[in-house]
Amino acid sequence: MHKNQPFLSEQIQRKKSFLCVGLDPDLEKIPDEYLNKEEPLLSFCKDVIDCTKHIAIAYKINIAFFEALGPNGWSQLEKLSKEIPEDCLFIADAKRADIGNTSKKYAEYFYDRLGADALTLHPYMGVDSLLPFLVRKDKWSIVLALTSNPGASDFELQKSDQGEYFFEMVVKKFNSQELQEHVMFVVGATQSSYIEKIRLLAPNSFLLIPGVGEQGGSLEDTVKAGRNQTEGLIINVGRKIMYPKGKITKPDDIRASADEFHSQMKVYF
Amino acid sequence: MHKNQPFLSEQIQRKKSFLCVGLDPDLEKIPDEYLNKEEPLLSFCKDVIDCTKHIAIAYKINIAFFEALGPNGWSQLEKLSKEIPEDCLFIADAKRADIGNTSKKYAEYFYDRLGADALTLHPYMGVDSLLPFLVRKDKWSIVLALTSNPGASDFELQKSDQGEYFFEMVVKKFNSQELQEHVMFVVGATQSSYIEKIRLLAPNSFLLIPGVGEQGGSLEDTVKAGRNQTEGLIINVGRKIMYPKGKITKPDDIRASADEFHSQMKVYF
Repeated sequence: MHKNQPFLSEQIQRKKSFLCVGLDPDLEKIPDEYLNKEEPLLSFCKDVIDCTKHIAIAYKINIAFFEALGPNGWSQLEKLSKEIPEDCLFIADAKRADIGNTSKKYAEYFYDRLGADALTLHPYMGVDSLLPFLVRKDKWSIVLALTSNPGASDFELQKSDQGEYFFEMVVKKFNSQELQEHVMFVVGATQSSYIEKIRLLAPNSFLLIPGVGEQGGSLEDTVKAGRNQTEGLIINVGRKIMYPKGKITKPDDIRASADEFHSQMKVYF
Repeated sequence: MHKNQPFLSEQIQRKKSFLCVGLDPDLEKIPDEYLNKEEPLLSFCKDVIDCTKHIAIAYKINIAFFEALGPNGWSQLEKLSKEIPEDCLFIADAKRADIGNTSKKYAEYFYDRLGADALTLHPYMGVDSLLPFLVRKDKWSIVLALTSNPGASDFELQKSDQGEYFFEMVVKKFNSQELQEHVMFVVGATQSSYIEKIRLLAPNSFLLIPGVGEQGGSLEDTVKAGRNQTEGLIINVGRKIMYPKGKITKPDDIRASADEFHSQMKVYF
């Protein structure tokens, strides 16, 4: 099933929600009760999905936490991929990119074998390094533009000799008429003054926004600056939903935490 | 075992070789005779290692080709990691990088569980995104600077408002006194005029150089521009060694192809 732009806009309006739940199942952080299970990451993430699927429009799986466990982690990931609800976008947050013949392998794995609808990508090596992802019009390429970490100032916020920020160059390169229907950009909510800049450069594109929640970005500023006529926003919240009470978090706590984020979002509909 | 700069210099001088063999075992390309084996990538790569270990100073495993096969691919990768000879650097070419808590997971997997000595990394998100790798002084961080693909011109070769190429900014950021003993830079041999620039900025650093062989970079220009007083060069050759006769390649062909590259390198010692 092709989860295209109209599909996404429809889910957002129907659920009155921009919420993407970030599945970052860190073995050091997941509630103790899951640690004795045979497949702890899978069990925990399944419960998180059950507690949030009524209001989530996307799930973003952080691949590193599964990769850290080797083959068994990948096996849990492949099972988890089948649990993403049909009405939600499945984002594989893997931040891949390499020369063409290698990127092709990554695309095959994440899009075809794992069944992800979208994959996060590093732009550094240039457009041709992402072509194997970009040619897949049935899937989303999510290109890093301006990330939410302090190190964004090292390169992303440096200026070119044309007077534009580096992240602006990235957005312009990946924002052709042809690409805008299946390319999103990552923009951190911690940099809300820059969301407007990206929205000007890419008025029709969806934006994936981390940094609301744990990292302190403002929901109101984000919606104001980033929303467009097709909604255009996917707002990721990870740790604040998954671990609201740390190691003693229960499913009801997760549900309550997600509902709290949703109640803040509903007012915009 | 910590395979540090003196270790690398010693292997290079002892073997009279800069050769890193790139293990890119593409199922569509590996010789037919391996396809019926239970673990084709592993079997093929083991034979490649056997045919080249007398002259290789490093092996660079392209992780994507294993990842493409899911849990079974990772299982083959973990077995292969134990086959890297003790006198060679084991480079995991995975091109990872993410915010700190995620990069930490990648570092744990590749350095500790897989036992890689070195890992390739995307610099785009800035220094803090790579800290979990950089703090590991017993391991190498290999930062992408100027890659060998045409898309390098999209961003890496754009100029900043300070008049420097973007890749020069990257090299400067990761080339402190403290880091230079365990940080390498990737510089494509196809851009040999730029190797000199990087050598000026990072006189003491090791450089990992792809693009000799299949991509047409000149060995002579590379050695002239990049060698330093500790040798400072690791030159990767992948497809031209692994598949010199395509699908009917035999181990003897691989050995002959590697020996040919080595004979071209020996003249510099």
